[in-house]
Amino acid sequence: MTTGSIYLGLIFKSPPLGDLGGFSYLCRMRLNDTIVALATPSGAGAIAVIRVSGPEAIKIVAPLFKAKSNKNIQDQASHTLHLGSLVDGARILDEVLISIFHGPKSYTGEHTIEISCHGSSYIQQEIILLLIKKGCRAAEAGEFTLRAFLNGKMDLSQAEAVADLISSENQASHQLAMQQMRGGFSDEIQKLRQELLDFASLIELELDFAEEDVEFANRDEFNRLVSKIQNVLKKLIDSFAVGNVIKNGIPVAIVGEPNVGKSTLLNALLNEERAIVSEIAGTTRDSIEDEISIGGVGFRFIDTAGIRETQDVIEGLGIKRTFEKIAQAQVVIFLLDAEMFKVQCSKFKVEIEKIRNKFPQKPLLVVANKTDQLSEAEISNLTVSLSAVEGSNLTDSQNAVEGSNLIFISAKENIGVEELKNKLLEFVNLGELRNNNAIVTNSRHYNALLSALEEINKVQEGLNNNLSGDLLAIDIRQALYHFGEITGEVTNDELLGNIFANFCIGK
Amino acid sequence: MTTGSIYLGLIFKSPPLGDLGGFSYLCRMRLNDTIVALATPSGAGAIAVIRVSGPEAIKIVAPLFKAKSNKNIQDQASHTLHLGSLVDGARILDEVLISIFHGPKSYTGEHTIEISCHGSSYIQQEIILLLIKKGCRAAEAGEFTLRAFLNGKMDLSQAEAVADLISSENQASHQLAMQQMRGGFSDEIQKLRQELLDFASLIELELDFAEEDVEFANRDEFNRLVSKIQNVLKKLIDSFAVGNVIKNGIPVAIVGEPNVGKSTLLNALLNEERAIVSEIAGTTRDSIEDEISIGGVGFRFIDTAGIRETQDVIEGLGIKRTFEKIAQAQVVIFLLDAEMFKVQCSKFKVEIEKIRNKFPQKPLLVVANKTDQLSEAEISNLTVSLSAVEGSNLTDSQNAVEGSNLIFISAKENIGVEELKNKLLEFVNLGELRNNNAIVTNSRHYNALLSALEEINKVQEGLNNNLSGDLLAIDIRQALYHFGEITGEVTNDELLGNIFANFCIGK
Repeated sequence: MTTGSIYLGLIFKSPPLGDLGGFSYLCRMRLNDTIVALATPSGAGAIAVIRVSGPEAIKIVAPLFKAKSNKNIQDQASHTLHLGSLVDGARILDEVLISIFHGPKSYTGEHTIEISCHGSSYIQQEIILLLIKKGCRAAEAGEFTLRAFLNGKMDLSQAEAVADLISSENQASHQLAMQQMRGGFSDEIQKLRQELLDFASLIELELDFAEEDVEFANRDEFNRLVSKIQNVLKKLIDSFAVGNVIKNGIPVAIVGEPNVGKSTLLNALLNEERAIVSEIAGTTRDSIEDEISIGGVGFRFIDTAGIRETQDVIEGLGIKRTFEKIAQAQVVIFLLDAEMFKVQCSKFKVEIEKIRNKFPQKPLLVVANKTDQLSEAEISNLTVSLSAVEGSNLTDSQNAVEGSNLIFISAKENIGVEELKNKLLEFVNLGELRNNNAIVTNSRHYNALLSALEEINKVQEGLNNNLSGDLLAIDIRQALYHFGEITGEVTNDELLGNIFANFCIGK
Repeated sequence: MTTGSIYLGLIFKSPPLGDLGGFSYLCRMRLNDTIVALATPSGAGAIAVIRVSGPEAIKIVAPLFKAKSNKNIQDQASHTLHLGSLVDGARILDEVLISIFHGPKSYTGEHTIEISCHGSSYIQQEIILLLIKKGCRAAEAGEFTLRAFLNGKMDLSQAEAVADLISSENQASHQLAMQQMRGGFSDEIQKLRQELLDFASLIELELDFAEEDVEFANRDEFNRLVSKIQNVLKKLIDSFAVGNVIKNGIPVAIVGEPNVGKSTLLNALLNEERAIVSEIAGTTRDSIEDEISIGGVGFRFIDTAGIRETQDVIEGLGIKRTFEKIAQAQVVIFLLDAEMFKVQCSKFKVEIEKIRNKFPQKPLLVVANKTDQLSEAEISNLTVSLSAVEGSNLTDSQNAVEGSNLIFISAKENIGVEELKNKLLEFVNLGELRNNNAIVTNSRHYNALLSALEEINKVQEGLNNNLSGDLLAIDIRQALYHFGEITGEVTNDELLGNIFANFCIGK
């Protein structure tokens, strides 16, 4: 029970550099260095941006830059742009545009120079090498954002949102990251933490007057606060289920044999969204990506080998793997060739039954492809035949999904694809997102919230049992510790290392 | 012979938009539109830059941008930076940094806004879509630079150098592109053209006084100018041989059987240069690239299947293809496995002889790999044995290359790789480059220079034959036309289309 007092020492706001400097991760970073990195994606483009940040940023770049105006950038105002040449002695490296930011009015909070150069990999490399020769250090992954955090430009959950924002690939994940970067639920956590901290101080004050048996902290008010905190924490913890799938994409297993049209279906689903990308940003994706954005939400499609009945050992292993993939998925699409259904009706029925029996709770869409080849009468027969299977146990287990789960499509002719999209979206509960509610997407935050709730429940219990102030204080401090983990008031070397190592270099 | 007068009408300086507006290529561009494109490479990175240029650039972006300072960017000075949010109504798209450039003080010469946003593909796309919704048009490939050219910010050969600069992958090609972008030989061409134009005017003046038989243009002076122009043109035309290989990489055929260590060799050559790239710019190249930069010069390695003697028809085709590849190469590396040489000595000798006989003028390096497996004595034997082949006819045909062309290496152990690199560099005449002389790299310029020289030679001939002024004037105008083609004083729709269509979008 002495751990509480250890944590006490770790609670501080806007951690100053000195306090963290002793840790090896930050030591390696040498936070007084001036750092340099490519900030734009690597590869050739019209322009590239190289970022220099640190106390010497302007001093290092100034002698390397010959402004067209002949002005020295050391004398120029913050937030100004300057055209000129970047030179290494007599050698001209490139004609560049320089952006000047004086700390603390910059992303990192330090003096920062951004060099916008021609986008050849060779030039990028030469400029970075020159800057290193002149005293910069190559930045570690995420070091710019780490410095922004350490300099109090953002809290830890906001810093994490920066990485989420960069990797966001659809509207929903973008909205969540944006919300979090602009404060999001960390503001709420911060406020509750402050209220809790105030109570903790009062209770600790009581300890100083232990002999006099006074109560500075009103227990009724405290009870109300604890209940409020419990409610907020529960709501946030529940939101993680939605947040997690939005962030990582909703896993959908496609069960079907190779020639049934899986890739045509994925292409049809991908098509509309993809056309925009390639037309506007000049990008082309050559292979079918497994993540497709539908209605602003990411779906991860998982290809399976199907579950054809067989005596073959190898085939049997294939079926086992298909079942494993279905288990990971949140939705299952059983894709069948409508034409083949005519001759292999019972085979398909057996397979569908098998999935239903093994995963009774899992939403299942039966999708009959290539229906453009069938007559009206054939489609009608197919509907009756498949409905017989479909009705067996689906309606009971799938109350969330309205209407039929049998869809006729022609991926090739783009028939029924829109209906399939809508069906898929029905499986996602986007209410929270649409209502702009705070949603937790980060498993680190999720775990911290779970731990905080556990400690708050202990406080609640303590209050109910009229526990003494000194014992209450320990649990409160534990809860405060977990709140602080989210926003970064409490942090340590290893944690920062884990978070920022996943950033790209240059951010 | 009436073509001369048609060209007369096409000679103008700094072409105004109106004169070119009638052409379909430029028509399609609609040069009064405000255009938008991603300027940084596509893909995820810390940041991305979206460029907006045109008369409405600032007006379109202003209402979408909420500055942190609450200032309206329409009232802000050129060359300033502003932090804030990019919004679409109530929806916040991103927190961005805006750079403002007032025309003509911008790359294109027009009002320009650069939006530095978070580097997610989704965000890039959303911002570009929003700008299009608000009145921008997606830029065509090279349209920013085309506008810079049309607005007189650079001449045509400088515009072409921008594209070369972006695709430059080593020191030599970068230096050439940089030189050209900063004026390079087009300044010289421009000056000669002006002198020639002055003479042309005088000679045409004579035509107005034809009855009086006066000579305004001093024929001796004119003769001197024509000689000077011939010399300059010849020098530039000769430089193309060097310029072309520097720009496109020096082709090196590697002849050797599959297991002889070709890819290990390429990796060893690539290694040093590559380590720098991946360490600093955060890039990794997963496959062995065929272009490798050695000592600042690009070499293109061409893999061949070897020329093993065979009766097999298919194998015979393989040998034919190997010879075709050798014919395209400027240098040939015959790579052999030193260990296998012991048992297959005569086979290798026959193969080397065969290449020598077929390509007596082509530099040939015999490289014995895997020498780490051999004893000193074995290496000595090998040297004698291979030297016998080597001495046969190489020394005669390869005066340019000093010393032996037999190199022992171990690609795996990185032995002898440095020597091989030096050997390869000996084959490239970099004197012109080192002396900072003007070098022509562009085949369009090369062809224009050839045509100009041809016309100047006709003028020379005409002068020698005391041709009358009206006939001289026609050839002079033809020469002027070809000069103008290089710098862009003379241009047409198709030409501009060809040049700028090869640019990336966003430049």
